[in-house]
Amino acid sequence: MKNKTVKQAVILGASGYTGAECVRLIMGHPHIDIAALTGHSRAGQAYGDVYPNFAHMDLPKLCTADEVDWDMIDVAFACLPHGASQDMIAKIHERVETVIDLSADFRLQDANIYEATYGRSHDYAELLSQRVYGLTEFARETLKGAKLIACPGCYPTASLLALLPAVTNGLLANAPIIIDAKSGVTGTGRKTAQALHYSEVTDGAQAYAIGHHRHTPEIEQELTAHSAYDVAVSFTPHLIPMNRGMIATCYVELAKDISLEDLRGAYIARYENEPFIHVERQGIVPQTRHVKASNHCRIGVFADRIAGRAIIVSVIDNLTKGSSGQALQNYNVSQGWDETLGLMGSPIFP
Amino acid sequence: MKNKTVKQAVILGASGYTGAECVRLIMGHPHIDIAALTGHSRAGQAYGDVYPNFAHMDLPKLCTADEVDWDMIDVAFACLPHGASQDMIAKIHERVETVIDLSADFRLQDANIYEATYGRSHDYAELLSQRVYGLTEFARETLKGAKLIACPGCYPTASLLALLPAVTNGLLANAPIIIDAKSGVTGTGRKTAQALHYSEVTDGAQAYAIGHHRHTPEIEQELTAHSAYDVAVSFTPHLIPMNRGMIATCYVELAKDISLEDLRGAYIARYENEPFIHVERQGIVPQTRHVKASNHCRIGVFADRIAGRAIIVSVIDNLTKGSSGQALQNYNVSQGWDETLGLMGSPIFP
Amino acid sequence: MKNKTVKQAVILGASGYTGAECVRLIMGHPHIDIAALTGHSRAGQAYGDVYPNFAHMDLPKLCTADEVDWDMIDVAFACLPHGASQDMIAKIHERVETVIDLSADFRLQDANIYEATYGRSHDYAELLSQRVYGLTEFARETLKGAKLIACPGCYPTASLLALLPAVTNGLLANAPIIIDAKSGVTGTGRKTAQALHYSEVTDGAQAYAIGHHRHTPEIEQELTAHSAYDVAVSFTPHLIPMNRGMIATCYVELAKDISLEDLRGAYIARYENEPFIHVERQGIVPQTRHVKASNHCRIGVFADRIAGRAIIVSVIDNLTKGSSGQALQNYNVSQGWDETLGLMGSPIFP
Amino acid sequence: MKNKTVKQAVILGASGYTGAECVRLIMGHPHIDIAALTGHSRAGQAYGDVYPNFAHMDLPKLCTADEVDWDMIDVAFACLPHGASQDMIAKIHERVETVIDLSADFRLQDANIYEATYGRSHDYAELLSQRVYGLTEFARETLKGAKLIACPGCYPTASLLALLPAVTNGLLANAPIIIDAKSGVTGTGRKTAQALHYSEVTDGAQAYAIGHHRHTPEIEQELTAHSAYDVAVSFTPHLIPMNRGMIATCYVELAKDISLEDLRGAYIARYENEPFIHVERQGIVPQTRHVKASNHCRIGVFADRIAGRAIIVSVIDNLTKGSSGQALQNYNVSQGWDETLGLMGSPIFP
Repeated sequence: MKNKTVKQAVILGASGYTGAECVRLIMGHPHIDIAALTGHSRAGQAYGDVYPNFAHMDLPKLCTADEVDWDMIDVAFACLPHGASQDMIAKIHERVETVIDLSADFRLQDANIYEATYGRSHDYAELLSQRVYGLTEFARETLKGAKLIACPGCYPTASLLALLPAVTNGLLANAPIIIDAKSGVTGTGRKTAQALHYSEVTDGAQAYAIGHHRHTPEIEQELTAHSAYDVAVSFTPHLIPMNRGMIATCYVELAKDISLEDLRGAYIARYENEPFIHVERQGIVPQTRHVKASNHCRIGVFADRIAGRAIIVSVIDNLTKGSSGQALQNYNVSQGWDETLGLMGSPIFP
Repeated sequence: MKNKTVKQAVILGASGYTGAECVRLIMGHPHIDIAALTGHSRAGQAYGDVYPNFAHMDLPKLCTADEVDWDMIDVAFACLPHGASQDMIAKIHERVETVIDLSADFRLQDANIYEATYGRSHDYAELLSQRVYGLTEFARETLKGAKLIACPGCYPTASLLALLPAVTNGLLANAPIIIDAKSGVTGTGRKTAQALHYSEVTDGAQAYAIGHHRHTPEIEQELTAHSAYDVAVSFTPHLIPMNRGMIATCYVELAKDISLEDLRGAYIARYENEPFIHVERQGIVPQTRHVKASNHCRIGVFADRIAGRAIIVSVIDNLTKGSSGQALQNYNVSQGWDETLGLMGSPIFP
Repeated sequence: MKNKTVKQAVILGASGYTGAECVRLIMGHPHIDIAALTGHSRAGQAYGDVYPNFAHMDLPKLCTADEVDWDMIDVAFACLPHGASQDMIAKIHERVETVIDLSADFRLQDANIYEATYGRSHDYAELLSQRVYGLTEFARETLKGAKLIACPGCYPTASLLALLPAVTNGLLANAPIIIDAKSGVTGTGRKTAQALHYSEVTDGAQAYAIGHHRHTPEIEQELTAHSAYDVAVSFTPHLIPMNRGMIATCYVELAKDISLEDLRGAYIARYENEPFIHVERQGIVPQTRHVKASNHCRIGVFADRIAGRAIIVSVIDNLTKGSSGQALQNYNVSQGWDETLGLMGSPIFP
Repeated sequence: MKNKTVKQAVILGASGYTGAECVRLIMGHPHIDIAALTGHSRAGQAYGDVYPNFAHMDLPKLCTADEVDWDMIDVAFACLPHGASQDMIAKIHERVETVIDLSADFRLQDANIYEATYGRSHDYAELLSQRVYGLTEFARETLKGAKLIACPGCYPTASLLALLPAVTNGLLANAPIIIDAKSGVTGTGRKTAQALHYSEVTDGAQAYAIGHHRHTPEIEQELTAHSAYDVAVSFTPHLIPMNRGMIATCYVELAKDISLEDLRGAYIARYENEPFIHVERQGIVPQTRHVKASNHCRIGVFADRIAGRAIIVSVIDNLTKGSSGQALQNYNVSQGWDETLGLMGSPIFP
C-alpha cells in the first residue's frame, strides 16, 4: 500500500549529475521521501561513495531497477540517457502514479523527428501521445494530474523562457531567430572523456555541435506551437569553464511597429507573478552566478543597435531550472502542491 | 515590544561575503526574520543591487546602524571589520538580547595579545570577560543563553576541529604542531584590490602571511586551554583559486605509546553524534568540494610515514562552518533550539 | 644617435596587461631592445615588483614619459588608455621613427564617430589622417614604412579575420551580421574593481555592453571599407571565466547562389599562406585554449541549419593576436623584417 | 649517419602532457630537430589532431617505437609511464647517444626501493648503475656527457631546490622535515578518469596519497646523499584547481645556533648565479603564476613563529622545471651547450 501523505520516490540513474541534483532537492522537500536510487554500473555501492557530499545522509544504496520494490513507489524521476529512458519508462509507468522524465525521450512530439535527431526509433507512440511537455510556466494547466511529464532540455528551457513572451504575443517578425548559448560543464554529464579532463576544459572555451545540436528541433517545436507560423531557429551552444550556469543570448527581429518598450512590457507582464522568473530592470544584464544552485531564471531585454532588432538574454542553472529543479517544480504542480516546495533555497553566491 | 516567537535580526555589515552568507542562511531559518541590514558605504541601496542573487527576495534596504530601529531587534549578527566591530557592539549590546560577533574582536581572551595581533587596543574589557568563544561543538554548555558570542575565525575552526579530539585526550606529544592551511578566495572578503583581480588569482597559488598570520594566537589559545601545557603552533595559510573551501592539514607528533588506531578512535568517539562533523572512513581523504555551501566539516586521520607521527586533515566551507553557518549554529544553541535549524541544506556538488 | 641594427623601444603604459605582453614578446625579438618602460602611477618601481614573472630579467625601472631619453628611442608601443594615448602620441611622434598605438585612439577614421563612441574629442586630425589601421593580414602594403600604426581592438581583430574573406569576395547578402563574442578577463585590463574580484568572476558568465559596445563602429568601418555597401553589425560581447582567449561566433546570410563550399573555399584560399591564420578542417571547431599565449588565429566555417546561412567562428588570444602580438607583427612589417620575428612561440596548452 | 650539427630527437610517449611540453620546448631549440614522435595508442594520427595547439606546425605523425628509424636518432626523450619506460630504454639505449628519461624508472638508485615503491621489479641493474640523477643545478659535473639521465619527479624537484642549500651546508637539525606540497592538475597526466573530470576538480581542493606518495623515497634519497645522516621526510601532496604550478612548503628545524639570516644567506649564495633559480627578496612570497610555462623556480626563506624553525617555499611549473624543461636543461648540459638554450621564454602571466 502506498503512503498517502508522503510520496515515495525512486530516482532512476542517480549516479549522474541530474540524479544527484534530484537527490539534493528532494531531501529538502516536505512531502517526498527517497525510497530508492538506481545506478546500473554502481549498484550495491553506498550513495555517499558515489557522491561524498551526501555521505553524512541516510540514503538508500544504489540498486538496479529490478531490485526496486515498485509497490512502494509513487513517483519515478528518470535521469537516464535517452533511449534507455523510454525503455525503462515503458516498463514501469503503470506501476507508479507519476513519471517525471528528465531525458530527451518524450520531449519531441513527432517520433520521426525524434528518430532523425537521436538516431534511434521511438517505440512507445501511445505513451508519447499522452506525455505533457513540462516547461512549467507555460504548462500548468496540462501538468495538473499528469502521469508522464517530459522535462525540457536545459537549452530549450533557457531559450523558451527568453522567447515565448515575445512569440506568444506576436511581437517578432517571421525571420530566423539566432540563439547563441553558453553552458557550464555539468551540462555534459558525469561521463568520463579526455575532452572533459580538467586540463582540457579550464581556461578556454569553444562552440560545439554547430548547426546540428539536438536541442534545436525541440526549441523550434515549442516556438512554432505558440506561433502563427513555423519558426526557424539557428542555435549554437558553447562550452565554457564553469560548473553550473547557462546563458541564452537571443537575437530577434521585431514585428512591424513593435518597439523595445512593447517588448519589455510583454516580458514584465508575463512574468511579474512568477516565483522563479525575473525580468531585470532596464540596463541590468543577468549573470549566471546569481542563479547558481537555484531554480531561478533571470531575463534581460535589450535594444539592438540595428533598428527593429532586439536582444533577449536569459540565465539559468542548467542542473536546477534546466533539469532537476524544473522536474520537481513540475511534480509539485502535478500534485496540486505549492509549486515552490523544495525549491526556495537561495542562489549560492559567491 | 519584541516579537517572542520569531526573533528579529539585524545583520551589521551585510555588504560583505559573511554578511551575505548570513542573509542566505537566515532566509531559510523558521524562527528568525531579517529586520535590518546595515552597510555603511552602500546605505540606501536595495540589497538586490549589492547582491543580485537576492534581487527576487523581499529584503530591507541597506541602512546605517543609526537608522536601525533597535527596539525591534533581538539579535545582531556583526559581520564588521575588526576594530569597527568592538566599537559597534559596545554601543548596541544592551539594546539587543544577543550579539553574535563574526569579527576577530572578541576571539582572543587577552587584550594584550589582541593589541599585539590586530594593531589596536581592545577597549571593552568587561564585554571581553563575558563573551563566549563559539566553536560550537566544544562550547555548548557555555553557549546556552549567552549574550555575546565570539565566532572563531575560519582557519581556527578548521584547525581546532582537526586537533581538539587529540589534544583533549592527551594523545599528542608536547611538540610544535604544524598546520598548513589552504583557503578559497572568499576568505579574503569582498574588498577591491589588484591582488584579488580574477586574472591575478586564477590558475595559480601561493602561501601568504608566513610566520605571522593573525589566526595563530587564536589557535594556540584554544589548544592550550584544552591541554596540560602551552601548545606551540606553526601556521601557514595558502590562497588557492576556488571560491569557497578550506583545508587544514595538521602534522602532529603522537604521545608515547599512542597508536594511529588510538587516534582515529578518539575522533570517531568524539564526533559520532555530531550532526556536522564527520570522520572519514579509513583511507578516504576529505575534499572541500563535498562540503561547499554547507555547515559540514569532514576530517581524515592518517598515519605519517615517520613512526610516531600523524596527519589530520579537515575541510570546511570557510563562509559557512568557517563563519556564518557556525554563527547561526551558535545562535540556535544559545536559544535552546535544534542546533541544525536553517543549516540542513546539502552541500552543493558539483 | 640612434642604434641602427637594434631598434630601441619604449613601452608606454607598461604596468597594464597589454604593456606586459609587449615586454614578454619583445624580450624574445632579435632586433628590438627595451630601452624604457613608462607607468605613471608606479614610476620609480622595479618592473619585477609590478610583474614578478619578470623579476629575474634585466629590465629598466618604470619611469614617467618625461624621464624617457627620447633621443635614444626608435619605436614607441603605446599601451595607454584611450584619450591619454592621443595626447601622448601627439607629443612624442616626431621624436621617434615609429609609433604603434594599441589604444582605441586612432582606430576610427572619422573623428566624429570617435567622439560619439569614446566620449571625448579627437584633437589630432592630421595624425589621424596619416595613421595606418593595422589588421596585419589585410594591411601589409600600407604598413610598410608606416610611422603611426593603429592596432585593431581585440574584438575587431577576431571578428574581421572571421568575416573579411567573405566580405571582400562578396559572398554575403546585404543583411545584418550578428557577432556573439566571448572574452577572457584579461581583456578588461588590470584595473581594480569589485566586478573583477576573483569571486565575482569565477564560475559564472554574462553578456555586457549589449547594443552599445565601443568596438562595434570599428568593425562596421572595416567591413564597410571592404564591401560595396554599408555593413550593419550587431555585436554582443560576453565575459567568461578564463584569463586569455576570445571567440567571435559570426552569424551571416550568404549571397544568392553562394554555397557553404564556396564560402569555405574562399577562407582556405585567402589564408593558406598566412603564418598565423589557420582554417580548421571540416567539422573541427576552434578552441581558445589552442591559441593561448600565441599570435595565432584559428577559424572554422560551418553551415547553419537554416538554408542560405553560415556560421563562422574565430578564436584568438586577446592579449597576443588581439593586442600586443599583432602590434609586434605590424612593427615587423613596417620595418621590412620577417613578419614572424618574436612571434613563433607555440601556444601554451594545457 | 647521424647529423652532427643538429641533433635528431625522438619523443617517446608524445601523446601525454610531458611529451607535448617537450615538443613545445624543443621547437624553440636551435640545435635539436624533432625526428619522430611515438604514441602507442594513437599511432598513425597527425600530432595536430592529438594536440590542436600544434596543428599549424610541421611535425611528424605519431608512430609506434618500432616504426622509428633509430639510425637517424641522436637523443630520446622518454615520456612513458614507469615500467614501460625501463623496458623501452633497455631496448633502445644502445642505438642512440643519449636517453633522457622523464619517468620514475631510473630515479631511485636502489632497485629494492624501486620495487617497493612502484610495485614492479627493476630489471636493468647495469643501466641503473650508470644513470645520472638530473637535478640540474646539483648535477652539472656528472651530467656532462651522460648517456642516461633520470630526470627528477616534479615534487622532488620543487622540494630539493627548496631544501638542498640548507642540507648541503648542514644548517638543519636532524629532525623530520615536513613538506606540504600543492600541484596543478597537469601533474596527473592526460589520462581519462572520473576524478579528473572538470566538474570534479574545479572549485575545490584535497590532499591525496597521504603518508605514501611515491616521490617521498626519492626526496629522502637525495637529501640523505647530501647530508651526514639519514634524513626523514614527511611529504603530503595536494591537488588544487589550476593547470600548471607546484608549491613545496617546507617546515624545518634549524641546527643549533643557526639563524634565519644564516639560512637566507646560504640560499642567496648558492643560487645567485643560477639562471633559473631565484631567491625572493625578504618578505616576498613566491607564487606559481609567476613561473608558469617557464623553467624558473622561485624560492622564499622565512622565519617561523616558533624559535629555531624556518619555512622554505619554492614554486615551479610542474610541466616545465618539474619535467620537460629540466629534461631539456639536462640535455643542454650533457652536450656542453649553453644550459638555457630553448628555455629562455618568459613566464606567461596572466
